Amino acid sequence: MQAPRHDASDGDGKELFGRRAERAGAVPLWTFFKEWFPGEPRSEAVGHLWRYDQLRPLLLEAADVISADAAERRVLALENPGLPGRRTVTEALYAGLQLIVPGEIAPSHRHTAAALRFIIEGRGAYTAVSGERAYMEPGDFIVTPSWTWHEHGHEGDGPTVWLDVLDVPLVRFLGTGFSEHHPQKRYPESRPPGDSRRRYGSNMAPAGYRRDPHAASPVFSYGYAAARETLVGLAANGPLDPCDGIKLEYIDPTSGGPAIPTISTFLQWLPAGFATKPYATTAGTVCVAVEGHGRVTIGTGDRARSFDFGPRDIWAVPSWQPVQLVAQTDAVVFSASDEAAQRKLGLWRERRDS
Amino acid sequence: MQAPRHDASDGDGKELFGRRAERAGAVPLWTFFKEWFPGEPRSEAVGHLWRYDQLRPLLLEAADVISADAAERRVLALENPGLPGRRTVTEALYAGLQLIVPGEIAPSHRHTAAALRFIIEGRGAYTAVSGERAYMEPGDFIVTPSWTWHEHGHEGDGPTVWLDVLDVPLVRFLGTGFSEHHPQKRYPESRPPGDSRRRYGSNMAPAGYRRDPHAASPVFSYGYAAARETLVGLAANGPLDPCDGIKLEYIDPTSGGPAIPTISTFLQWLPAGFATKPYATTAGTVCVAVEGHGRVTIGTGDRARSFDFGPRDIWAVPSWQPVQLVAQTDAVVFSASDEAAQRKLGLWRERRDS
Amino acid sequence: MQAPRHDASDGDGKELFGRRAERAGAVPLWTFFKEWFPGEPRSEAVGHLWRYDQLRPLLLEAADVISADAAERRVLALENPGLPGRRTVTEALYAGLQLIVPGEIAPSHRHTAAALRFIIEGRGAYTAVSGERAYMEPGDFIVTPSWTWHEHGHEGDGPTVWLDVLDVPLVRFLGTGFSEHHPQKRYPESRPPGDSRRRYGSNMAPAGYRRDPHAASPVFSYGYAAARETLVGLAANGPLDPCDGIKLEYIDPTSGGPAIPTISTFLQWLPAGFATKPYATTAGTVCVAVEGHGRVTIGTGDRARSFDFGPRDIWAVPSWQPVQLVAQTDAVVFSASDEAAQRKLGLWRERRDS
Amino acid sequence: MQAPRHDASDGDGKELFGRRAERAGAVPLWTFFKEWFPGEPRSEAVGHLWRYDQLRPLLLEAADVISADAAERRVLALENPGLPGRRTVTEALYAGLQLIVPGEIAPSHRHTAAALRFIIEGRGAYTAVSGERAYMEPGDFIVTPSWTWHEHGHEGDGPTVWLDVLDVPLVRFLGTGFSEHHPQKRYPESRPPGDSRRRYGSNMAPAGYRRDPHAASPVFSYGYAAARETLVGLAANGPLDPCDGIKLEYIDPTSGGPAIPTISTFLQWLPAGFATKPYATTAGTVCVAVEGHGRVTIGTGDRARSFDFGPRDIWAVPSWQPVQLVAQTDAVVFSASDEAAQRKLGLWRERRDS
Repeated sequence: MQAPRHDASDGDGKELFGRRAERAGAVPLWTFFKEWFPGEPRSEAVGHLWRYDQLRPLLLEAADVISADAAERRVLALENPGLPGRRTVTEALYAGLQLIVPGEIAPSHRHTAAALRFIIEGRGAYTAVSGERAYMEPGDFIVTPSWTWHEHGHEGDGPTVWLDVLDVPLVRFLGTGFSEHHPQKRYPESRPPGDSRRRYGSNMAPAGYRRDPHAASPVFSYGYAAARETLVGLAANGPLDPCDGIKLEYIDPTSGGPAIPTISTFLQWLPAGFATKPYATTAGTVCVAVEGHGRVTIGTGDRARSFDFGPRDIWAVPSWQPVQLVAQTDAVVFSASDEAAQRKLGLWRERRDS
Repeated sequence: MQAPRHDASDGDGKELFGRRAERAGAVPLWTFFKEWFPGEPRSEAVGHLWRYDQLRPLLLEAADVISADAAERRVLALENPGLPGRRTVTEALYAGLQLIVPGEIAPSHRHTAAALRFIIEGRGAYTAVSGERAYMEPGDFIVTPSWTWHEHGHEGDGPTVWLDVLDVPLVRFLGTGFSEHHPQKRYPESRPPGDSRRRYGSNMAPAGYRRDPHAASPVFSYGYAAARETLVGLAANGPLDPCDGIKLEYIDPTSGGPAIPTISTFLQWLPAGFATKPYATTAGTVCVAVEGHGRVTIGTGDRARSFDFGPRDIWAVPSWQPVQLVAQTDAVVFSASDEAAQRKLGLWRERRDS
Repeated sequence: MQAPRHDASDGDGKELFGRRAERAGAVPLWTFFKEWFPGEPRSEAVGHLWRYDQLRPLLLEAADVISADAAERRVLALENPGLPGRRTVTEALYAGLQLIVPGEIAPSHRHTAAALRFIIEGRGAYTAVSGERAYMEPGDFIVTPSWTWHEHGHEGDGPTVWLDVLDVPLVRFLGTGFSEHHPQKRYPESRPPGDSRRRYGSNMAPAGYRRDPHAASPVFSYGYAAARETLVGLAANGPLDPCDGIKLEYIDPTSGGPAIPTISTFLQWLPAGFATKPYATTAGTVCVAVEGHGRVTIGTGDRARSFDFGPRDIWAVPSWQPVQLVAQTDAVVFSASDEAAQRKLGLWRERRDS
Repeated sequence: MQAPRHDASDGDGKELFGRRAERAGAVPLWTFFKEWFPGEPRSEAVGHLWRYDQLRPLLLEAADVISADAAERRVLALENPGLPGRRTVTEALYAGLQLIVPGEIAPSHRHTAAALRFIIEGRGAYTAVSGERAYMEPGDFIVTPSWTWHEHGHEGDGPTVWLDVLDVPLVRFLGTGFSEHHPQKRYPESRPPGDSRRRYGSNMAPAGYRRDPHAASPVFSYGYAAARETLVGLAANGPLDPCDGIKLEYIDPTSGGPAIPTISTFLQWLPAGFATKPYATTAGTVCVAVEGHGRVTIGTGDRARSFDFGPRDIWAVPSWQPVQLVAQTDAVVFSASDEAAQRKLGLWRERRDS
């Protein structure tokens, strides 16, 4: 065989070739090579902020539109404006605000998608995981790991709202989604509240305990009061990271890994007046202001978008867009991203301009 | 607050509510809950087989349509008929047939997507990874790991064709795609051919070598002759697995993990007359017949599709669709799937009916 | 060559052969095969209990015999009566009672042997590890990891005594002992007390923290009050293990592994009246009663030894000797063993008669 | 309490105190602190070389002194002259020369100590591990992992001798020695020779294989011919390491770890005329010359000892003594050390003067 004689630079010829390829179930790579192999990631998602004050009335109204029982989960999913019709907050994560009202039960089910609940408002509701309840206070962080039975209930006397974040877009993309309803609305109570945290979350673990390396964290509830005190203490000890202030990751203390195998979760403290240096990561991230007021800038140049934020506001940061935070008051920010999944796959990258 | 008074079962009311939610950047979960949380995975991809005899003329013609240099890589991507416009062979994997002709160089570049090359026909071409060449024989399996410089060249005298499989759909989904051209067309030669296999692939490793747990396999070339001999030897030793016959996974001998961190790769031997029991996995899979003739059935019931296959034919198996193989002659099948990525994320499942 | 013609069953011939072998630097294996390959472990160490009331006066007197500065560490090492001259409490562990008096400094040094300090009495003393102080309360557990600078000081106003346990016999056996004096008596203060526990021991860790898999736990101080509360809470939740009661292991929360890479450490709760079933492990163990009274039986048959114990009494359990505890009052027992080292080497075994 | 008033520098007073402590089962640490915490390791073992020509006649004579059956294993253990009565070649390792003659069976047993066999001379003998035989050629390296049934037999027609190296001193030190005789002299044949190497040692592994992280390597036989060819090939590729020449470690290809969890094993190539730079490690090491002649120097200054070596000579290197090798001809050296155990315990150190 000889080297090719010439390039068929004739556009019509190439197009014709493309159509013949298509009929054979194939597509010339050169027609989309540049799109698929860019110099750096270009997510279609955009930086966006949802004001809690605007969503709250709609969410409360949802209680009249549908029951928790009929909805299975009464949630308003936050859809990234750059991903219309996708129903996701970033490429790989879903986020939504879930409402439960006193007396309701969101019935027991399980799914391979992992979920976290970050409590926005209300007291007296709970999530039960495999029959152990974690009661909710604002700022608490609760995990319902992959394929664990869980239900939500409410024994208090006002609406309770939390932010759900799930890896379900990733699970769906991979074709790995299973789910199941429990035959009973409530999974039988198995252990008293707080048992798992005591047993595994006190820098101790049961003698002889050996962890399945792929299992989820046996600690599934992380209280806000203790986490906040930790942040404040470390802020006093210093120093502050130029990009992060004081930023801690929730971990599984029986492995040191992330609290959720696929989702990294963080709590961050910024003292009043602190302005972070730009920080970019390939992980798509959803954030919620727990306390304080400030301003967040997402992206650079033409794509830069800035938003003022106050307590309970939620924002999304797409992959590889630099973020800067300015804290007008002391501020606490919770965030969740697919960093954990990306790290396991060897794909995570970060850039610090500090 | 009281429990909700009633369900707004009025469809119009719900639709109105949905539109108002949409304006606030939100979507009621209950409108897509069932779609997103099915009992088991329902991939849109379909079982499909591409006959090499049909693709080969088109591929050879491509050498006249575009040069390797202009195309960067002269590939016909196999598009799953169930995923039109997606250009992927399964949800998470891309596969294509790449042609290189004598004297050509497909220039040096690198990307975060990992790639494998399974040689279909031709001799005398090579892939160079970080400056070490692996020369190609039909049936050889070569890896170009994530973010390693690689180019292809051809010093023989006929067309060389291989099957490319990349995790680039997953990499794009996660927003983690980086790529870069090398300033030179060829990366400088660093080591003689075969050095890496000698150094790391002889059940030995350099004294003091300690592997980065996230790094790719230092062995990047797996010859067919040795692999085939291994399969035949084990088939003689027995027993055969009802679902698999004799099926081995290519591994990174410095970790025991998959040869590619995100892609599992297998070589399988079926003696003439052997019929496998149905086997399903959540991993989307692309297969190529290396030797032999037989019949593959993908899916069950209405979705079942059967194809006769011969040497060099390629087929795709979507997530969770059971597969059965019947070998009319002794047959060898190579396969690649996203099992490795799914396992790392704790999402992989299998079902054996044996 | 032919098969051997006969056995030289003549004892004299064998002895002569042995002497000739000896001159060649060799020893016939058959002369010690049975001793070296017993059916199960037969430690020369014995079960033994040291009464704190008997050791305390001697220890206080030591303050007049030698200064902390001259002694470097003012310790009475507990020597197992079955291992005379070995100065070890079990085969692989050293244990001793260390005294520090107000105003003293036991100067900064480091060594490859890892050490733990379990506080027996006194308040106001501290251990500083890499410049961070951990102040001592009875029942606290402090680690000075391998090759970390550490010193002890005392700012309170009574004697402080703790139990030291080190892996130094193992380190010496392997020929891996290094040590070094710091040029200054005190290592410079680096962080405020409690910083490490906050930073790594709150079920959170600094964002981006990635642990060296061979490093020691960054948490090096485990308070008694919290650990005791955890045990009491779990005892209320139940159930109790027949061999253990409630027994927790101190862990490194950044890995889930033992608090010390070579030494496993436990805190155990036995309610009044509880009698444990026999439990044997290959790990040599040293125990101290933190609270309560009871009786411990070590070994079975002829080797069985029983001891009454009260607060602060210390006992040693040799490898593979079954232990039974009877709690006359609610009792708390701290224990340390070489289980962690044995597990890493694949050598640890246990037997439960329950 | 006050600070101590004075040092009892009076030697008699200290000695009296020591005797009173002894009666209480305690020893003042300050009497042995310096011995136990030296600046660097000071093994009592010495560098020593055993000439095979001197041991061989004695070993052959042993065939007349005792049968393999009566001896269980007919071995002359090499005792380090610095460790008289210890019967060990280094502190933690045992080594011996084992002889088996045609027709003999060294009966099936198992023990927690791990063993390796490095074949010195003879053909036609085999070791069976869990019923799979590995036939022996000079230079082959065979593992009988911890707690696996194994026997030796001989179907050839001359004496076969190999070097045994076991971690039994470490196993005994830790009190973890179990052993058991198989009810039959021979364990039933389970798989054909070579099956394990095929199945796990071809840079492939059975599909679905997931390794127990504490298990031994499923590959237990490493042939000399292939290993030698690898070394020669890499020596040609270069470069040579100043301390090592070309030195490869035998690995478990299903984990990348050492072939034996507690014992590191190496094969090293030195071209004629090559002189290595001094290299010291904390691991006690036993070496055997497979091919070639040269000179080895162990230790420095007063402790330095030099030995000429030829094929089949064996030498011991104590912890932390620098070694230099000079190859008079092309030389191949096999070595085994407790580096693997020391690494797992975080205790291994090396020093390179290059």
